[in-house]
Amino acid sequence: MTTLAKKIESIAKKAHLTAPTAAKLATETKNQILEGIAAALLTRQDEIIKANQKDIRAATKNKMTTAMIDRLILDAKRIQAMAHELREVKTLPDPVGEIVKRWTRPNGLEVSRVRIPLGVIGIIYESRPNVTIDAACLCLKSGNVVVLRGGSEAIHSNIFLVKLIRDVLKSQGIDQDIVQILPMTDRKAMGCLVKQSAFIDLMIPRGGESLMKWMEEHSRIPVVKHDKGVCHVYVDESAQVTMAEKIAYNAKVQRPGVCNAMETLLVHEKIAPVFLPSMIQKYKEAGVEVRGDEKARKIGPSIKKATKKDWATEYLDLIVSIRVVSSVDEAIRHIQKYGSTHTESIVTENPKNAEEFLNRLDSSVVLWNASTRFNDGGQLGLGAEIGISTTKLHAFGPMGLEELTTTKFVVKGRGQIRE
Amino acid sequence: MTTLAKKIESIAKKAHLTAPTAAKLATETKNQILEGIAAALLTRQDEIIKANQKDIRAATKNKMTTAMIDRLILDAKRIQAMAHELREVKTLPDPVGEIVKRWTRPNGLEVSRVRIPLGVIGIIYESRPNVTIDAACLCLKSGNVVVLRGGSEAIHSNIFLVKLIRDVLKSQGIDQDIVQILPMTDRKAMGCLVKQSAFIDLMIPRGGESLMKWMEEHSRIPVVKHDKGVCHVYVDESAQVTMAEKIAYNAKVQRPGVCNAMETLLVHEKIAPVFLPSMIQKYKEAGVEVRGDEKARKIGPSIKKATKKDWATEYLDLIVSIRVVSSVDEAIRHIQKYGSTHTESIVTENPKNAEEFLNRLDSSVVLWNASTRFNDGGQLGLGAEIGISTTKLHAFGPMGLEELTTTKFVVKGRGQIRE
Repeated sequence: MTTLAKKIESIAKKAHLTAPTAAKLATETKNQILEGIAAALLTRQDEIIKANQKDIRAATKNKMTTAMIDRLILDAKRIQAMAHELREVKTLPDPVGEIVKRWTRPNGLEVSRVRIPLGVIGIIYESRPNVTIDAACLCLKSGNVVVLRGGSEAIHSNIFLVKLIRDVLKSQGIDQDIVQILPMTDRKAMGCLVKQSAFIDLMIPRGGESLMKWMEEHSRIPVVKHDKGVCHVYVDESAQVTMAEKIAYNAKVQRPGVCNAMETLLVHEKIAPVFLPSMIQKYKEAGVEVRGDEKARKIGPSIKKATKKDWATEYLDLIVSIRVVSSVDEAIRHIQKYGSTHTESIVTENPKNAEEFLNRLDSSVVLWNASTRFNDGGQLGLGAEIGISTTKLHAFGPMGLEELTTTKFVVKGRGQIRE
Repeated sequence: MTTLAKKIESIAKKAHLTAPTAAKLATETKNQILEGIAAALLTRQDEIIKANQKDIRAATKNKMTTAMIDRLILDAKRIQAMAHELREVKTLPDPVGEIVKRWTRPNGLEVSRVRIPLGVIGIIYESRPNVTIDAACLCLKSGNVVVLRGGSEAIHSNIFLVKLIRDVLKSQGIDQDIVQILPMTDRKAMGCLVKQSAFIDLMIPRGGESLMKWMEEHSRIPVVKHDKGVCHVYVDESAQVTMAEKIAYNAKVQRPGVCNAMETLLVHEKIAPVFLPSMIQKYKEAGVEVRGDEKARKIGPSIKKATKKDWATEYLDLIVSIRVVSSVDEAIRHIQKYGSTHTESIVTENPKNAEEFLNRLDSSVVLWNASTRFNDGGQLGLGAEIGISTTKLHAFGPMGLEELTTTKFVVKGRGQIRE
């Protein structure tokens, strides 16, 4: 074994050995830790900003784009937001120990399904250093141990934030190895990490398509992907035009760089002549590049031609592709063919068409008369989220605290044996 | 791409394209299919036995053991049992479409979590051909498409049983590709199958440790393992001796070749002198080879010495290892160190010790005063099972129909957008 492999194995093993401790922490203790971290974020703000400056200087030197550097920055306002988020998680119910279901068998066995933590979770993420705090604290509250691997561009910030968490754990007499971070960020180290199936129960990668492909290829640990969203809004024949405009605008423009932003707008041919001209106009005013199929271009002749590739592309940018369809069935088939089962919305006043859309499409979130941007743990009421799973296994869609747990069967008898 | 790879890809792709059809089959239709298969099993019994004879002849020629040949045999009684099982699954509630939870957000969005099928499930199994019917029908009832890969020793039986299922599907006008089987059983074909992550959502391997290792190494598709069980019974200081004897006997002897049979018996030192002598006697009468640590051997001097390797071994045979411990804490630590988080039982009249055991051990099933043999979907009331998952992700413990589904979020609004 190489020195690197040994080092990573030792981190994973320490995490594994701490898992029973993390699993059995009382709710009160976990909340005190979260409060301690929130307080430390505020009192140690200057140190955080100082560590963050090292990343910013390196980013500037490496000529990163302004947008990318912006994602890296930690300032007073963002640190306050992190502390605020922590205090929100503190108020959420503890999922561990919840009795999900309970029943009695004919032979008198009392069976219940009880929520338990998953064990050790490895999280791979990029850029934004606030994920370090978010992810660590969601794992902590759900009784899990976490091994973090942030991006190289945020390494100084991340290492400092983990040190801050570990200082709080130490001051409260809790095993610090509940939260660890890989000090190296290269793929070689990641390659060692994803082989630790004896010690790590779940890997959550958050990032782009190449990271997902890499994980699929290399991980020997179960993976719940946070993959791309090729999300759709379908404006049905009977849609309210103003509502459709509002939703199609919000889904594309409000925050184009995220996975639940809409990429393709499908429009019923009967409403297209009324709906599209002003919609295209509004997009253009917002700086959105509009592409379309032949039928759409007949209505909005100034728009570019959409190719087959467009239908399957997650732009994460101010670009939209428009296709005119002749029925809700054609819209559903388009989404089944090109979509990524992330988020799809129908705008319609026709309940039958709505039900067909909601029923036939098995994307993680399907909406009727609402923006795709609501595919989010906070927005849907899960309280917080570690991300949006695109893997159907275990958790599909936004993952909150509950989704970071599993259940065991607890059986109470009076000497029953199997005949 | 090789011819084999193309062939397997085509099977997986056909399965994927059929998934929306399978997902939307009405409960009534699915039950009619199950009834049709049950009836066909009985009317085509002679053909089944004829196909099965080919496997039996090959097995005899290959000098397989009598026990292994016995697992392969399909006779009138076993075929009737398969038909009976199918009719049991028919009576179970359809999990698809179930609204698991429903709530309203402050902005008026109505959110619900609705059960949907996973999509396409690949199942790898060995020997017993009745698994072909079991697995196919559980996948069918839960709205999933299945690709089966049985063992080479049962290939003629399996291919015929799948043909029988597909005949029923055809006669009822349902797409036959909902159930497919790999005609080749070698690892090369399996290697192609587990690369089809674009078309298959879940792989379930049922088999020995080498299959599990192989899956971990090669699968690019999420895997829910059905791995080994190193299961424990702990007889506490305050156990009722007769109850403890009954449970420890049942857990080891009733069916030693299965994953929920006990392998290690832990006994509190204060009860050991009373409990062990007659327990060891009973095991010997049942032909069980008894091994033990130093303390156990002082009480039962005729027993063999247990090595460190014994504590971590799944015998699947009439062998038991006994260890004498000084507290419930020592028993728990032993299980945490050597166990496989499958099934553990405590026999005690002390509720505090019971709670500590049930609470601290996060195995898939933990029991108080009952045999480990109850870790079984049917016994725990899930109605039927596709196996016992040892993966914490998605489903932990026995997997019934519900565990073959996931949930999507369905959101109904009145034009809400994200601010």
